[in-house]
Amino acid sequence: MPRRAERPAPTAAELATRQRDISVAEFFLENRHLLGFDSPQKALLTAVKEAVDNALDACEEAQILPEVRVEVRPVDDGVLRVAIEDNGPGIVEAQIGKIFGKLLYGSRFHKLSQSRGQQGLGISAAGMYAQLTTGKPLSIRTRVVGEPAHELSVGIDTSRNRPDIHDKRQVDWSVAHGTRVEIELEARERAGAHSVERYLRLTSIANPHVTLHLVDAAGNATTFVRTTNELPPQPDEIKPHPDGLELGRLVALLKSTDERHLGAFLQNELSRVGSKTAQRIIARADHGLTARSYPRRVARRQASALYRALHATKVSAPVASCVVPIGEARLLASLERESHADFCVVVCRPPAVYRGNPFVVEVGLAYGGSTDADGLTSSASEPVTLLRFANRVPLLFQQSACAMTRAVIDTGWRSYGLTHPKGALPLGPMLILLHVASVWVPFTSESKEAVASYPEIARELALALRACGRKLRAHLARSERLSRAEDRRERIRRYVPHVVTALTELLALDALYAERLTTELSEALELPREGESR
Amino acid sequence: MPRRAERPAPTAAELATRQRDISVAEFFLENRHLLGFDSPQKALLTAVKEAVDNALDACEEAQILPEVRVEVRPVDDGVLRVAIEDNGPGIVEAQIGKIFGKLLYGSRFHKLSQSRGQQGLGISAAGMYAQLTTGKPLSIRTRVVGEPAHELSVGIDTSRNRPDIHDKRQVDWSVAHGTRVEIELEARERAGAHSVERYLRLTSIANPHVTLHLVDAAGNATTFVRTTNELPPQPDEIKPHPDGLELGRLVALLKSTDERHLGAFLQNELSRVGSKTAQRIIARADHGLTARSYPRRVARRQASALYRALHATKVSAPVASCVVPIGEARLLASLERESHADFCVVVCRPPAVYRGNPFVVEVGLAYGGSTDADGLTSSASEPVTLLRFANRVPLLFQQSACAMTRAVIDTGWRSYGLTHPKGALPLGPMLILLHVASVWVPFTSESKEAVASYPEIARELALALRACGRKLRAHLARSERLSRAEDRRERIRRYVPHVVTALTELLALDALYAERLTTELSEALELPREGESR
Repeated sequence: MPRRAERPAPTAAELATRQRDISVAEFFLENRHLLGFDSPQKALLTAVKEAVDNALDACEEAQILPEVRVEVRPVDDGVLRVAIEDNGPGIVEAQIGKIFGKLLYGSRFHKLSQSRGQQGLGISAAGMYAQLTTGKPLSIRTRVVGEPAHELSVGIDTSRNRPDIHDKRQVDWSVAHGTRVEIELEARERAGAHSVERYLRLTSIANPHVTLHLVDAAGNATTFVRTTNELPPQPDEIKPHPDGLELGRLVALLKSTDERHLGAFLQNELSRVGSKTAQRIIARADHGLTARSYPRRVARRQASALYRALHATKVSAPVASCVVPIGEARLLASLERESHADFCVVVCRPPAVYRGNPFVVEVGLAYGGSTDADGLTSSASEPVTLLRFANRVPLLFQQSACAMTRAVIDTGWRSYGLTHPKGALPLGPMLILLHVASVWVPFTSESKEAVASYPEIARELALALRACGRKLRAHLARSERLSRAEDRRERIRRYVPHVVTALTELLALDALYAERLTTELSEALELPREGESR
Repeated sequence: MPRRAERPAPTAAELATRQRDISVAEFFLENRHLLGFDSPQKALLTAVKEAVDNALDACEEAQILPEVRVEVRPVDDGVLRVAIEDNGPGIVEAQIGKIFGKLLYGSRFHKLSQSRGQQGLGISAAGMYAQLTTGKPLSIRTRVVGEPAHELSVGIDTSRNRPDIHDKRQVDWSVAHGTRVEIELEARERAGAHSVERYLRLTSIANPHVTLHLVDAAGNATTFVRTTNELPPQPDEIKPHPDGLELGRLVALLKSTDERHLGAFLQNELSRVGSKTAQRIIARADHGLTARSYPRRVARRQASALYRALHATKVSAPVASCVVPIGEARLLASLERESHADFCVVVCRPPAVYRGNPFVVEVGLAYGGSTDADGLTSSASEPVTLLRFANRVPLLFQQSACAMTRAVIDTGWRSYGLTHPKGALPLGPMLILLHVASVWVPFTSESKEAVASYPEIARELALALRACGRKLRAHLARSERLSRAEDRRERIRRYVPHVVTALTELLALDALYAERLTTELSEALELPREGESR
């Protein structure tokens, strides 16, 4: 190793001069794998996913049935140009720059309601990666109904986390409203489980109200047509639920509220606290607090007492309307259509809460049937296939880091009739679909590829999986009984004639009697045994 | 499900009013699992780790042999108070607030040189979690040599990501220089693999120049004493290396440089580019570029050409002095001391580069020996134990998401003599220590618990593991040979007397001759056979 130069030790004052602010854009540029841009293969899918997420959120918020087109076009060796076009409400001019050229900017972070995007990072991260690898800014075309269409280029000034807007101009566009984003980036198309095609197919499974068009880099066109014209219900925005609410968040709410009385504060700033419950909480908190205490003047000591009282008092479960599951019927129909399985079952759990955030778990299971040409269901001797979704978005990476995978591994599949190696996925011709819908999905990284294992989420997943498992066991037992009965019938069909021939010879029976004997013997033997049902 | 209220569809203008800036502190508060604060058990360890990382970095930068004390004290049910005190250079008053009460602020992000901290997130995240769960700010005491000691409380205003400073005062403190951080947080002490004690023990393995003291919540004191008084060499700060440098980063460097000529720019702003290499790159780039082109005026088209030329030209490997491995001798000594194994081997790879960032991989392997009372080495039928380190910091969580784990799983251990189930860790009484040192370690999340699988890093890990594996195979083969030879000697010792007795009787030999025969027979039979070495 070459010798290092001797340097004098720096003083604390010298060290202080090295301290600096770090722009959030610089941070994520250096850590771009956190956002899903660690390889050209992943970059394509991540960019498409972020743009499609935004498109679907915007359409649904504006109550428009979404129709989204994805086009991938080769530009140069290792460089692709991707366009994502939606029929959403369009974006007003003043917002375009910030939405596409500033990290941590968005409409969904500050409200508790289910949506695909929640961080205000995704699409601007795609733009930042494009700029890093090809130097090209995003090209945006958008039209708000009744206004002219605009087109502009949006780059990002990473050292200040600010949009860098060029070439803004009015254009002719035949659509009434919508947005088209074009991204030129270092990327590579993949086939199979990590292809754009698979991603769109899975999106259509969890979003039967969406139509998706794809033209891939080779020019092949695919369309996934919606199977319902009904938009999912709009999720309601809610207040934080007391279960799992942290002291710090309670203090922040007390400080920022416009309510003038503690009683009203509890009822109006928290979910599911009625006037009686509020009274009970305040009485339990004691420390001089009354229903008429002024929230902003609650002291730290009192806030702690209130916090303990909140957690000691029973509050109703959160209302279901803030989370929108796919629903049993729709999920079952999608599963049956896509898996061609012998047996499908779906279990939707009631809403539960982690850290004050309501969530719902849905699990579907498809077993056996014809081997799927597209490879969704695994074969008998292989680990089962998992399809993971969070807020209706398919999760394609980091399977081993996900709470959903953990929950499948931790379920005792042997007792439901499957082969299950220790610490691994069970084996069998099976597909498990898991969906976590929440006002705030706790992802393990900003790229939103896996769900963090909060105990409450793990518990709901386990309950849904076990319920599916019990139904699978019943199905497998039934198939086994049926196949045992079929075996016996088969044996009877084969042996009865020989028995009758033997008896005929032995007892010197006539042909007519022999025939009757064959029928009677077969019928008698084919009757179900005691304790056995058909 | 309760009926949702019918709402009119919002217009694009209404949707625009919902867009807002998201403060980076709010973002991480909501996503605190990204920072390692998802459970009270993890919170304790993460807080200790962030504070110890900072203490060690500060001491080493000021060239002080680090001595760090960690005290854990129970405060209330589920609440602990942790103090971390170092003998570092202290912090000048003006910086205290920002270092402890502002996310994304620090001295290490903007320079390419190896350190434990790199993001400017850790300790302020610990403070934010403390404030969220107990409402208590961090308490900081610090003294710069020759100045009075100061004490103050630092909270964080999350909506603006700004420090909130209280109770600043001068205090008497007997130490000449150093810093003491106290954190009161919702936390729980764990025993075993995720204990503070284990964390400090592993830290001392990778940092033999550090003395660490621990007083746990039960009042038990433990000390890990340094085994060397020599500080590791100071890592040199370097310029980006051309290998894997992205176009965007090159453009940013061209725009921000103070160099007035392209030739000087290439030599002075990049690593390992000499004047000849610079000339070759510029000639290859063509597009009107010369050594005297003004860097800030290089056009996009020219920058692309320069970028391609950079990647087509061979540049020497990065200098080793920017990364400081633990080193073969030190690592082997630590491994032998801690594992009590029969066989230890360490392989240190030469520096390599990913995305322009130099890094070094070191792997140690300890096999067999007495079962370790503290449980570092696994037993024969269990998966091997992994000890993962990044820039000398032990990684205790997210083992399954880590490139180091992946590399161990993907190595063909069967050919080195171990049992190795497919897709899992090999089994055996073995410990594998892995260390990635880099000017920028790509962690899979802000909590820095696992290293992302960049292909270049995976490759270096694989090479080091295979080199260890080959040495293990030689050791196992040798032990097997030795044990075979021992078996034969044992058999000889047992049977020779019988043979001699039989011969004595058969040939009527006298006792003296029988004794000589015994010796001669034994010696003849114990000689190694042809092709067999001792």
